[in-house]
Amino acid sequence: MFRLSHRPSRDKRVTTHCALVARAFGASSMAFSGEADDDLIARIGRVEKSWGGSFSVSYEPRWEAYVKKWKEGGGIVVHCTMYGERIQDRISSIRRAALTHDVLVVVGGEKVPGTMYRMADYNIAVTNQPHSEVAALAIFLDRLHSGRELELQHEGAKLRIVPQKAGKKLVVCV
Amino acid sequence: MFRLSHRPSRDKRVTTHCALVARAFGASSMAFSGEADDDLIARIGRVEKSWGGSFSVSYEPRWEAYVKKWKEGGGIVVHCTMYGERIQDRISSIRRAALTHDVLVVVGGEKVPGTMYRMADYNIAVTNQPHSEVAALAIFLDRLHSGRELELQHEGAKLRIVPQKAGKKLVVCV
Repeated sequence: MFRLSHRPSRDKRVTTHCALVARAFGASSMAFSGEADDDLIARIGRVEKSWGGSFSVSYEPRWEAYVKKWKEGGGIVVHCTMYGERIQDRISSIRRAALTHDVLVVVGGEKVPGTMYRMADYNIAVTNQPHSEVAALAIFLDRLHSGRELELQHEGAKLRIVPQKAGKKLVVCV
Repeated sequence: MFRLSHRPSRDKRVTTHCALVARAFGASSMAFSGEADDDLIARIGRVEKSWGGSFSVSYEPRWEAYVKKWKEGGGIVVHCTMYGERIQDRISSIRRAALTHDVLVVVGGEKVPGTMYRMADYNIAVTNQPHSEVAALAIFLDRLHSGRELELQHEGAKLRIVPQKAGKKLVVCV
């Protein structure tokens, strides 16, 4: 997943939410542009250490070069934007492409450069209404994985929740 | 939808995302606790004016009284929490209940009081992993509406997007 942002300080919490959603919904890694943020990388690293899995976060100052390289490596690029084609019309095509290609999902904040729209293989809207890149990412990954991400097990977790009707049950694996 | 937060200033942007997601995914209104925030109400009002619909936001200082009143009025309460029962196991039951009852979806931030877990008819987890209340809300509403929210039309919209393969097409209705 790629988080494209030009206002990193304003977008900080939202970028953290994007990273956590990407991890919980089955993405393997996230890269982000804008300003370097070692805190974010460390924070997600701590989540990973406690809750398992092998998700990683990296900083990529040159987003265009990163996306270009992804495409040159045979991957496809899906840009989530409210201006794009309706997810319900295109998801089957993307799912088919994902069988043979790695998928890079790009979520921006406001004012994503026009270049991004042209570089993307798919510009995809989760509703054509203004809402949240966090929600768009979640719904996109959910549809891409046909809901199977809800069954995901994160290997090596130290903390594990036992689902409860009410209250909290947290198991610490030692 | 109810946004339960005790750290309104830190949670401000996330609360805005919650409101926009609630609106775009078919909720009729949102109430929020914590600190009063006229800005938020005005901001969502402007979105509503431009993009249509009849979604409204209100401030409710006493969340417990609000939830209690909802239940006394015959409504059911669904609290989204990572500690809850798995959405995939409970959504059919909630969908059935929603045929005859109004549903209040509660999303908190960190440190939701134990009372909320006990007042909720359903405590529901969208994965039992730490991620984002914005994503949990989106996935919950998506499942509740069986994806039909993606087809939602917002009456009286002044702005309308025409979905594009690349680029942006915004129609201004006069």
